[in-house]
Amino acid sequence: MSHTAEIIAVGTELLLGNIVNTNARDISQALSAVGVNVFWHTVVGDNPQRLKEALTIARSRADILITTGGLGPTYDDLTKQTICEAFQKPLVLHEEIVEQLRVYFEKNVHMTMPENNIQQARLPEGCTVFDNPVGTAPGCAFESGGVHVLMLPGPPFEMLTMLRRCAVPYLRRLSSEVILSHDIMTFGLGESPMEQLLRGKMAGMENPTLATYAKPSEVRLRATAKAPTQAAAEALLSPVVAEISAFLGDVVYGVDVGSLEEVCFRLLKEREWTMATAESCTGGRIAQRITALPGASQVYRGGVVSYWTAVKAQVLGVPQTILDDSGAVSEAAARAMAEGARQVTGAEIAVSCTGVAGPDADERGVPVGIVYIGLATPEGTFCRACDFGKRRRDRIQDLSSNHAFDVLRRYLTGLPIAPKGLMGLRP
Amino acid sequence: MSHTAEIIAVGTELLLGNIVNTNARDISQALSAVGVNVFWHTVVGDNPQRLKEALTIARSRADILITTGGLGPTYDDLTKQTICEAFQKPLVLHEEIVEQLRVYFEKNVHMTMPENNIQQARLPEGCTVFDNPVGTAPGCAFESGGVHVLMLPGPPFEMLTMLRRCAVPYLRRLSSEVILSHDIMTFGLGESPMEQLLRGKMAGMENPTLATYAKPSEVRLRATAKAPTQAAAEALLSPVVAEISAFLGDVVYGVDVGSLEEVCFRLLKEREWTMATAESCTGGRIAQRITALPGASQVYRGGVVSYWTAVKAQVLGVPQTILDDSGAVSEAAARAMAEGARQVTGAEIAVSCTGVAGPDADERGVPVGIVYIGLATPEGTFCRACDFGKRRRDRIQDLSSNHAFDVLRRYLTGLPIAPKGLMGLRP
Repeated sequence: MSHTAEIIAVGTELLLGNIVNTNARDISQALSAVGVNVFWHTVVGDNPQRLKEALTIARSRADILITTGGLGPTYDDLTKQTICEAFQKPLVLHEEIVEQLRVYFEKNVHMTMPENNIQQARLPEGCTVFDNPVGTAPGCAFESGGVHVLMLPGPPFEMLTMLRRCAVPYLRRLSSEVILSHDIMTFGLGESPMEQLLRGKMAGMENPTLATYAKPSEVRLRATAKAPTQAAAEALLSPVVAEISAFLGDVVYGVDVGSLEEVCFRLLKEREWTMATAESCTGGRIAQRITALPGASQVYRGGVVSYWTAVKAQVLGVPQTILDDSGAVSEAAARAMAEGARQVTGAEIAVSCTGVAGPDADERGVPVGIVYIGLATPEGTFCRACDFGKRRRDRIQDLSSNHAFDVLRRYLTGLPIAPKGLMGLRP
Repeated sequence: MSHTAEIIAVGTELLLGNIVNTNARDISQALSAVGVNVFWHTVVGDNPQRLKEALTIARSRADILITTGGLGPTYDDLTKQTICEAFQKPLVLHEEIVEQLRVYFEKNVHMTMPENNIQQARLPEGCTVFDNPVGTAPGCAFESGGVHVLMLPGPPFEMLTMLRRCAVPYLRRLSSEVILSHDIMTFGLGESPMEQLLRGKMAGMENPTLATYAKPSEVRLRATAKAPTQAAAEALLSPVVAEISAFLGDVVYGVDVGSLEEVCFRLLKEREWTMATAESCTGGRIAQRITALPGASQVYRGGVVSYWTAVKAQVLGVPQTILDDSGAVSEAAARAMAEGARQVTGAEIAVSCTGVAGPDADERGVPVGIVYIGLATPEGTFCRACDFGKRRRDRIQDLSSNHAFDVLRRYLTGLPIAPKGLMGLRP
C-alpha cells in the first residue's frame, strides 16, 4: 500500500518570512527516498486553533502527518498539546527523559535544567520516542485510526538529525516499496536544450522516470525507480543511467556526486596533486568552495584574492606590461594569474579567474559578464573566455566559480578545456 | 479592515524536496510590510484536482490568495486554468502580451517564439496584468466575491521582481494600515541571554512589539509598529529603537543594516581606508563576503588564502620561528598573518583568521573550534581568541568570519577588540 504524507510546519516566524522552510524540503527528500508520496506542505503559526484546523484537514487527506516545530519549553511551543487534543491522546511524563534532559543541561549548557523544561518530557501515551542527541526537545511518533503522526523539532539541525536517526527508520517499516534515485550531474547545457535533447528518451519512460532540475549553468538529471526491493530498483536504474550518461557525453561530471568541486577534490586526490587559486571577480568564492570540503588541505594549498590590479602584480607577479597593454580583465592576465598562483604556492595546478561582475563595466570599458578562467598546469597554461551577459553580480560570481571548477575537472579528466557550444562561452 | 492572506505554491518539485520554498518567505516578508496577515502557507503539486481543493480551503479562510508557479507554457503549468475554473472566470487572449512575448523571445532568447507560449497571453477576464520584465510568463490579479487572487511566476527572480513592481502596490491599495519595522542588529549575545536581558522591557509591549530572530552568533531584534500612516508608525518606533539600542550598547552593530560586512564596508569608506585579508580556516569566506558587496573594490584590495603553512611563510611572510614555536594556529601566527597581508597589499588595515574548523584537530593537537582573529592596523596589531567548541565545519567557518568582521567593526568604531563575555571568546 502506498502512503500519502502531509508536512505541517508550526511557527509564526515562517509566516512572517523570517526564516525559510528548509525542513519541508529535507523531509520531502527523505520521504521520497522511502517511497512515501508527499502531496501537501502546510505552514501554520503558533496558534492552537489554526493548528487544530490544519490537523483536521491533514488527517482527512493523508495517512502520515509530520510536524516540525513547537516542541520547546516556551509558551509559544504548542504542537504537542494541540496534537494530543486533536487525537485524544493523554500526555504522559517520561522519567527517563527528565533524567536525559538534566544530564544534557549539565553537560552541554553548563547549568541546572530550568523547571519548565520538564514539560518536554511529557509525550503522548504509547508513542515511539525519538531521541534528540543535539538538543533538548525529544520527538515522537504514534498511530491513531490508521494515521501516523510524527513530531519533529523545529531547529533544522535537530530536525535533520532526528529525521535520519529515528523518523526515516520508522517510515521505512511502514512502506512495502523502495524508491531509488540516481542523479546524473551535468555542467554546461541549459535546462531547455537538455530537455529537447532528451525528449525522445524521456517520452515513454514510466519506471524509471527521468526529471531535470536546473541550477545556474548546471542541470541535475534524476532517474527514479520504484520496486519491491533495493536490488530490483537498482536493476531498473543502472542501464538507464549508463545509457543517458553515454548519450550526453562529457557534460556529465558525475553520478550521485555533490558538486563540481567535490569531483575536482577527488580527481586531485587520485593524482596526489595539489591546487591553488588566483581570484579577482570571484573574490574568494573558488577558495571558499574547495575549503568547505572536509579534508581540503589534502589538495588545496592556498591562493590569492587579487582584487586590486596592484595585488595581481605584487603578490602574483603578473607582468606590468600585461596589465598595461591587455588590462586586468584579459586572457593574458588570467593566464599570468594562474601561473603566479602556481609559482608562489608550489601547487601542481592553479586556476584563476578575472572578469567584470558588475554592476558597472571596468575602467577600460570591458562590459559586465566578461570573465576569463586561467589554468596553469605542468603541461602549460590554458584559458576559457566566458560571456555571461549583464546579469546580477552574485550570478556572475557563481557562474565564474562553476566554470573554474569545470575547467579544472575537464583538464584532470583529459578533456578539452573549452568545448564548442558550452553555455556562456565566447566564440 | 485587516486582510488575511494564504500563499499557495504550486510545484511538484517542492513536494519532492528538490527546491526550497523561498518564494513563500519573500512574499510573507512583503505582506507583513504592507499590513497583511499571513496565516497559511500551502504547497501543492502540479495536480489540478488537489490545487482546486487547496483553492476551496484557502478562499474559505483568507481573503487574499497569492499563488506562485504554474504560469509557464509547458503541460504541467496549470495554475491559471485551475484558478479560472474555480472562480468561474473565462481566460481572454491579450494581443498586446502576445506582442511583448514575441519581442522578448527575439531580444533575449534570440529565437522565434514557440507557438505554445501564446497561452501565456491568455489571462482571466477583467484582471490587472502584472508585467514580467525578466521572463515570459506575466502574472495577474483579480477580485471575485471579496477574495483577491494574485498569480505570480515560480522562478524566484521573476517572482521577486513582479512582487515588488506589481503585487506590493496592488496590495498597498487594499490596506488601510501601515506596518513598519526596524531591525536592531546585534553580534555577540545568544538568543537566550538576549531574551533574558530584555524580558522586562518586552513584557508589556503591544505596539510596537519586539521579537528576536537568531542566526549563528547574531540576534536580530525586530521592532514593529502598526499605525494609520507611515509617520505615525515611525513616531511609535523611534523612541523604542533608541532606548533598546542604548540599553544593549556595543553589541548593536547597526539598525536596518544588512550584515556585519556592510557595516565594515561603510566604516572603511567613511575613513577612505582599504582592507586586506589573510585567511586559513575560513578559506576565502571573509574575502567572499566583502566582495559580494557591489563596489567592494573601493575598500577591498585583496588577500591571501594561506591554507598550507608554507603559504603563510612564503606569501604572507609569517616568520618560520612563529610557525615552528607557536604553530600555524596561534595568536602569534594570526598577528603575523594580518601584518603580512597589510604589508603585501598596502592596505591600511588587514584582518586574519587561523583556526581549526575540523572535523579533526590539527597536527599539533589544537582542538576543533579554536580560532584566532588578527587585526593589523596603523596603530598596531590586535588579536581575538575564540573557542567555538566542537561544531560542524561550516558553522565554525561562518562564526570565524563573523568574528573577523566584528573585530574590524569594533576597531573602526573605537571599541575594544575583545570585550569580556562575548560569545565564543576564550578567557
